[in-house]
Amino acid sequence: MLSSMVQQFDIVLLNYSRGFHLITNEILKSLPKLPETGIAMFFIKHTSAAITINENADPSVRDDFETFFDKLIPDNTLWFTHKIEGDDDLPAHIKASIIGQSLSIPITNYKLNLGTWQGIYLCEFRNNGGKRKLNVTILS
Amino acid sequence: MLSSMVQQFDIVLLNYSRGFHLITNEILKSLPKLPETGIAMFFIKHTSAAITINENADPSVRDDFETFFDKLIPDNTLWFTHKIEGDDDLPAHIKASIIGQSLSIPITNYKLNLGTWQGIYLCEFRNNGGKRKLNVTILS
Amino acid sequence: MLSSMVQQFDIVLLNYSRGFHLITNEILKSLPKLPETGIAMFFIKHTSAAITINENADPSVRDDFETFFDKLIPDNTLWFTHKIEGDDDLPAHIKASIIGQSLSIPITNYKLNLGTWQGIYLCEFRNNGGKRKLNVTILS
Repeated sequence: MLSSMVQQFDIVLLNYSRGFHLITNEILKSLPKLPETGIAMFFIKHTSAAITINENADPSVRDDFETFFDKLIPDNTLWFTHKIEGDDDLPAHIKASIIGQSLSIPITNYKLNLGTWQGIYLCEFRNNGGKRKLNVTILS
Repeated sequence: MLSSMVQQFDIVLLNYSRGFHLITNEILKSLPKLPETGIAMFFIKHTSAAITINENADPSVRDDFETFFDKLIPDNTLWFTHKIEGDDDLPAHIKASIIGQSLSIPITNYKLNLGTWQGIYLCEFRNNGGKRKLNVTILS
Repeated sequence: MLSSMVQQFDIVLLNYSRGFHLITNEILKSLPKLPETGIAMFFIKHTSAAITINENADPSVRDDFETFFDKLIPDNTLWFTHKIEGDDDLPAHIKASIIGQSLSIPITNYKLNLGTWQGIYLCEFRNNGGKRKLNVTILS
């Protein structure tokens, strides 16, 4: 089909606690009707939070994610040199680059073409990250 | 050049064993002739498998990847709470978000513009993941 | 707005030492004026280097990144089987797939729509990686 549109939306997410949160529905509510075919590109405008795709059903997956990443990069790691913004800051930066800040999802038949078990996670790595900004760009 | 096309393809991959597998040629065989210039966006529709780019030559790289990720997130980790789908399930979810489910590659001169040593890997994290679904969206 | 352009640029980066380096300005200097609205997709054509987004201010963040990833995947890991290209090679491959080779950033009002603290990092994982090739594709 002819590609003819770039649509862009700046979304401010709700205030989430530290951890992994399913935000698929919150994002979709902030968007107009999607085009028939295209790409939705999600970009979180921060360096201590990330977005990823994972299981949309059992919350224990998200709890285990939080435990795993905290064990991998503990807040109280002694050798960190970047400490001026708090013990949770440098770990948050590392986690953010491991998970990533940009995510592209195909749009098919006017919907995000997600697998059955896929949902979009906000990964909030700070203790008090506040309301995170997400840019959504739709190419169709 | 004028951008005028969105093309989209749903591919079902072969059944791969747990591990890292080079699938560049399998994907290319499933696609029509690529446009002169654009982007190919690959999206795997699962939460326990991932796609990445890495060395396309020596299979020992892919073996070492499997060993590394299994050591990083062992199947028998005692503290996991999400265990109802088997010992390999939660580790597969974590690995999938570390590697990622979406990947964009430029298209130049009618070909994927990959570096000399780059190939596309399917990262199969389940013991019996089955045939994985991959969406390819081409913007040109 | 109407989408009408695909622009593509092959950039050769400066020669960087092993570590994490802020390259936002170097990339922008290599690009023409950006379109009003769109996506910039960055793709590094290597398997032992990566690109990510992280803090653009304090260099100690980038130093701690280097320390963290070297502890996570040490050069002298005994069980690696892929050793023919040097002790830093297999760790570089693993790090590259953890961080990733493709990155998309929205373009808004003729600029990369980065958050206040966001910058683009080159992640050079080899001791002597040389000048890395980066493809930038702009869809607008």
